[in-house]
Amino acid sequence: MELLLLSNSSSDAGYLVHAHAAISELAAGRKTACFIPFAGVTRDWDTYETLVRDALAPVGIDVQSLHRLAEPAAAVRAIEAADLIVVGGGNTFRLLQCLRERGLLAPIARQVRSGAARYIGWSAGTNLACPTICTTNDMPVADPGGLDALALVTFQINPHYLSVVVPGFRGETRDQRLAEFTTLKPEVPVLGLPEGNWVRVSDQRIEMGGAHPARWFRGPDIADVQPGALSLPG
Amino acid sequence: MELLLLSNSSSDAGYLVHAHAAISELAAGRKTACFIPFAGVTRDWDTYETLVRDALAPVGIDVQSLHRLAEPAAAVRAIEAADLIVVGGGNTFRLLQCLRERGLLAPIARQVRSGAARYIGWSAGTNLACPTICTTNDMPVADPGGLDALALVTFQINPHYLSVVVPGFRGETRDQRLAEFTTLKPEVPVLGLPEGNWVRVSDQRIEMGGAHPARWFRGPDIADVQPGALSLPG
Repeated sequence: MELLLLSNSSSDAGYLVHAHAAISELAAGRKTACFIPFAGVTRDWDTYETLVRDALAPVGIDVQSLHRLAEPAAAVRAIEAADLIVVGGGNTFRLLQCLRERGLLAPIARQVRSGAARYIGWSAGTNLACPTICTTNDMPVADPGGLDALALVTFQINPHYLSVVVPGFRGETRDQRLAEFTTLKPEVPVLGLPEGNWVRVSDQRIEMGGAHPARWFRGPDIADVQPGALSLPG
Repeated sequence: MELLLLSNSSSDAGYLVHAHAAISELAAGRKTACFIPFAGVTRDWDTYETLVRDALAPVGIDVQSLHRLAEPAAAVRAIEAADLIVVGGGNTFRLLQCLRERGLLAPIARQVRSGAARYIGWSAGTNLACPTICTTNDMPVADPGGLDALALVTFQINPHYLSVVVPGFRGETRDQRLAEFTTLKPEVPVLGLPEGNWVRVSDQRIEMGGAHPARWFRGPDIADVQPGALSLPG
């Protein structure tokens, strides 16, 4: 199984530009991505396809968006024919709702688990690769019919991770939100993945790329971790 | 129907202190609150009961927490006997999960709609009074088995509303998150309720208290609104 799970898409250099090298390495010469745009809500899916096509052209990858196949059976066939599946960010609840409604979760998981397709996700697309979407930052604007996701990895990722206290805000900080998760699920590790970083899974090997330290949360334990080989805590 | 929906609980003056006058007015001499602590996750329910008991003692209200009644039938009877129901903040998903699992949503809604009990909520307790929890800021750390909530009001509230861009954060801003909701549900108005403010519903009359302007979101329309009488946009 070959996965590239990015925290975020935008960067000062442009959309996905910070991840060009990581995407090229993952794609390993694959020329066409089956793109899943369903996390897009305020950005319509045609526009999203164009954005990602333009972003991946410099690394030699063409993009065919799954939303153009209105019939679920055609979408399943496209997934079963894909050697590269790219899941864009946006709203994680909407993404999961669309995939569940169309019966596409199991086909995607099968195609990636078998090694037939490699997987790239960012933000919501990274949440989707986890056991559940329970550590998304997104607002539940759509009912996904359950929080279970693809479970391509055994741990949770919290994308866009940053530990800040916003002046004047009296709600929960990110760390407090993640502590809620680890209180209810102390056995499941969560990786707080900062902006600009990514996780690269190659079968049993897990590596973190990017410039920043990340943070593991597991039950009451919190540990900072530097880029490089990752091992699960606990 | 008599509701007091607070954005937040903590204030510089102490827990719920900013809302003493509004709570007294709503309670109108009622002496005992049936307290619903289920949104508490990192704070255990015994501790939460004590916190709220201490906070409401100065306004002459005693607190009996529903979590002490392990049997669902006993909890239903407590709700049916209550003349004041107080729903604390924390995690909205966990709150809704606990209430749904225990079969308490319909009894609470009945008791408040009939006018037999008045309702005070803050943060998650405010989200719960809305048609759905789709405009909560919380992390989905528990599966609530659907996003429908009490629907005591016909509009959505986003508690802890603030319009800021956090430096270095590349995820969605609050306004972008709310725009996702209004894109999918253009017919449902959302009130962005800032820290320190509250909504007071008295049958058909809706009033906003607090020091700050709030913000209505409905479809693509956004409008600031001052404290005082509220009318739904659109």
